[in-house]
Amino acid sequence: MPRVSDEHLAARRQQILDAAWACFARQGFHATSMQDVFAEAGLSAGAVYRYFPSKTELVRSTAEGILGNLTQVIDEMLDREQTPDPAEAVRTIVNFVTTMATSRSYDPTRIALHVWAESLHDAEIRGIVHTVAHTLRDRLTQLAERWVASGAIAPDSSPPQVAVTLYGLMIGFVGQLHLIGDVTADDYADGMVALIRSRVAAEVPRGDT
Amino acid sequence: MPRVSDEHLAARRQQILDAAWACFARQGFHATSMQDVFAEAGLSAGAVYRYFPSKTELVRSTAEGILGNLTQVIDEMLDREQTPDPAEAVRTIVNFVTTMATSRSYDPTRIALHVWAESLHDAEIRGIVHTVAHTLRDRLTQLAERWVASGAIAPDSSPPQVAVTLYGLMIGFVGQLHLIGDVTADDYADGMVALIRSRVAAEVPRGDT
Repeated sequence: MPRVSDEHLAARRQQILDAAWACFARQGFHATSMQDVFAEAGLSAGAVYRYFPSKTELVRSTAEGILGNLTQVIDEMLDREQTPDPAEAVRTIVNFVTTMATSRSYDPTRIALHVWAESLHDAEIRGIVHTVAHTLRDRLTQLAERWVASGAIAPDSSPPQVAVTLYGLMIGFVGQLHLIGDVTADDYADGMVALIRSRVAAEVPRGDT
Repeated sequence: MPRVSDEHLAARRQQILDAAWACFARQGFHATSMQDVFAEAGLSAGAVYRYFPSKTELVRSTAEGILGNLTQVIDEMLDREQTPDPAEAVRTIVNFVTTMATSRSYDPTRIALHVWAESLHDAEIRGIVHTVAHTLRDRLTQLAERWVASGAIAPDSSPPQVAVTLYGLMIGFVGQLHLIGDVTADDYADGMVALIRSRVAAEVPRGDT
């Protein structure tokens, strides 16, 4: 297939995704119809269905996009000579989530919240949410394995358990960002650092920090 | 008003709430109509409206009930002679959330997730979510203030920041419980303990733990 055609296909695909994201972010996933997406994209039903046969496929592509961005951030941490410690990793992740939430015309973290809500009712969407969660927790588990190996966390720590807690911190940040709206990445990361330092305060004599 | 009447009112009120909770947990808040609640409760529209003039008021009562349970758990920690340390506090809270999620005919944490989703679209529901969040974070801030006072966390820690992070941990636990379904309170608390111990491993020579 000639290269120009590939580019055209990719551009058209992105045009449809942009339209869908604008609709999802504005009115939620449930309230968005494929007709809304056609209108937003300025394309015919046939032109859209050729790329995305259903709303679920639009969500799948959207989720894959968000997942790709997040795994990249974690992979960059895994690729560093010196793996960032837990506090720095939490800060890096919540900073990136904030950047995602504010730097684009649509907010992918708000879309994530809509998709989570939809997954309570829709088994296909739930499957997508599971895939995203397991992929991210796998990456976070690798991060925790590095921490065990480097001695950054205790040798009897369970990397999958740490990954679940880190993923919970991510969900809790996105949740508060949209449900309450008054949380910043810095507050959140500083709060985490205070907790991480808590046992230091309890176990180590003062004056050595 | 005679006492028997008060009891009757309370029982009737609870009967309606039970019916609403069953509907919310089964089909979500959005998909539940007041007609569904009448049918589930076996009561007339007039009998229900006398207690709850709208779905929003049912949500408000439900949220107040969940909030009451959670603040009680935190208050019990605040009332102890020795305030539990951060790791124990996280364990106590996620254990209680798990108990809430499994010990009743309806699951209030699943209802919470539906209410969060609804709050994205509904300003009144958002107001309820904000009240719950601020009340819980106030209590968690008091807990963090105790930790600063006792030296359990560093003196330069910000109790409101710690509260935001702890609340994020709670949301992240409830989210994973329902979105993914494979997380236990023990895993989550152990993961948190591993993170709390992380700086100990990094800053303190091995062999002293």
